[in-house]
Amino acid sequence: MALFSSVTPVIIALICICLAALWSSRWKARRDRKVETEDRVNAKPWADEDLRDETELAVDEKAGSFLNDDLEVQHIPYSPQRYSEDEMIRRANEFYHLMNARRSVRFISEEAVPREVIDNVIRTAGTAPSGAHTEPWTFVVIQDPETKHQIREIIEEEEEINYMKRMGKKWVSDLRKMSWCTYPWVTRSSLHDWNAGLVTVTTTPLNCGPRVRVLLGRPENEKLLLLLPVGYPAKDATVPDFKRKPLDEIMVSV
Amino acid sequence: MALFSSVTPVIIALICICLAALWSSRWKARRDRKVETEDRVNAKPWADEDLRDETELAVDEKAGSFLNDDLEVQHIPYSPQRYSEDEMIRRANEFYHLMNARRSVRFISEEAVPREVIDNVIRTAGTAPSGAHTEPWTFVVIQDPETKHQIREIIEEEEEINYMKRMGKKWVSDLRKMSWCTYPWVTRSSLHDWNAGLVTVTTTPLNCGPRVRVLLGRPENEKLLLLLPVGYPAKDATVPDFKRKPLDEIMVSV
Repeated sequence: MALFSSVTPVIIALICICLAALWSSRWKARRDRKVETEDRVNAKPWADEDLRDETELAVDEKAGSFLNDDLEVQHIPYSPQRYSEDEMIRRANEFYHLMNARRSVRFISEEAVPREVIDNVIRTAGTAPSGAHTEPWTFVVIQDPETKHQIREIIEEEEEINYMKRMGKKWVSDLRKMSWCTYPWVTRSSLHDWNAGLVTVTTTPLNCGPRVRVLLGRPENEKLLLLLPVGYPAKDATVPDFKRKPLDEIMVSV
Repeated sequence: MALFSSVTPVIIALICICLAALWSSRWKARRDRKVETEDRVNAKPWADEDLRDETELAVDEKAGSFLNDDLEVQHIPYSPQRYSEDEMIRRANEFYHLMNARRSVRFISEEAVPREVIDNVIRTAGTAPSGAHTEPWTFVVIQDPETKHQIREIIEEEEEINYMKRMGKKWVSDLRKMSWCTYPWVTRSSLHDWNAGLVTVTTTPLNCGPRVRVLLGRPENEKLLLLLPVGYPAKDATVPDFKRKPLDEIMVSV
């Protein structure tokens, strides 16, 4: 809550990424219809698990045709640019240093961000790979102050419940001292923002998905995945002075 | 299976990304101990859901202290480089065009890749944000041909079961024509490989996690998240000739 208290009033552009659960619901529908004796837990692919929540999705029968449209996609030759080994090493090293300077920032300036940059960030996020090229995502850009305020209220209410009831006291106490907790996943968007000189922090507010979805008027087959406050860093922005694990602690070779 | 038949013999470096479920298991352990009356489904945060599988994790009591180590981390000022608006727009546009040229490639050359590049790709992946800066990941780089062969066998066996039993026939038939199905999530690694001139395809083989984990000698608190074959594209590599959705189909403004 400390995060949202400090950040929300000054959010320039709040981006919600909703992953449409079309993929999931179609998959589920097919499986339910055809695999009746199979254990459901085993049958559930990871991509499906990720999208699980309490919402029961109505099955859209038309959805079954989504693959057929692309079934006969032609293949074309692909020969991307090839670099010399020295150039590869240089580029990989340069990119590492760029990304290593990226930090999650919770203090965001009130300055307006060029809309063209946000558009390109989202265009870029849209180049992400997706299963069977379904591109199952919607990015909701929120600039309206009232909507941002309402999202903040939803998050604060749910967090209060999370902290007080859903989690243990010790965990909450730890978490508070650590400030906000972010998602272990990596988002392209945070990287893209960063490349353009903006900052963000990856958040996945617990249990807020359905209410935020309704607030934004998004359909039931979409799930809130990420909520990214985006903007310039505030002049007095600070970050925790931590170190990253060295390579030998995160890499194993076989 | 078509993918793995063609790709596996020529894989140069196969990278498994295992996300250590320490986060998840600690969270779960705390909750189980302290929140007994609460509905478990509601209590489950998304990050936890993502890591769910059938493995029951032993609770490491020492794990409870993982947050305390960092509790008193100092904050330091953070003022990253600021670009002019024109420069921001230029950089965002340039990055979009670079990423828009990226494709998932299933045909990989046998040529060796400079190890220094792989190391830097993993260093870069390690700069991803994580909840409470836990950096809960291990990247396993597999160059040993026998291990790669065994992984291929595991995947083919499980896929056979997936296709024949776990999914419906129609879906399987669609999927076959579409070749392999990739994860809707975005990985930094695929982006990093691409930046260095390498290609990959994001795969999340269904139900293979525990067997691959055991093969690689990884502990029970880790889950296989992604399996990325990495290398130069083959000379005759092809990709489906698809288009991406335009911005107005993936973006909504409020």
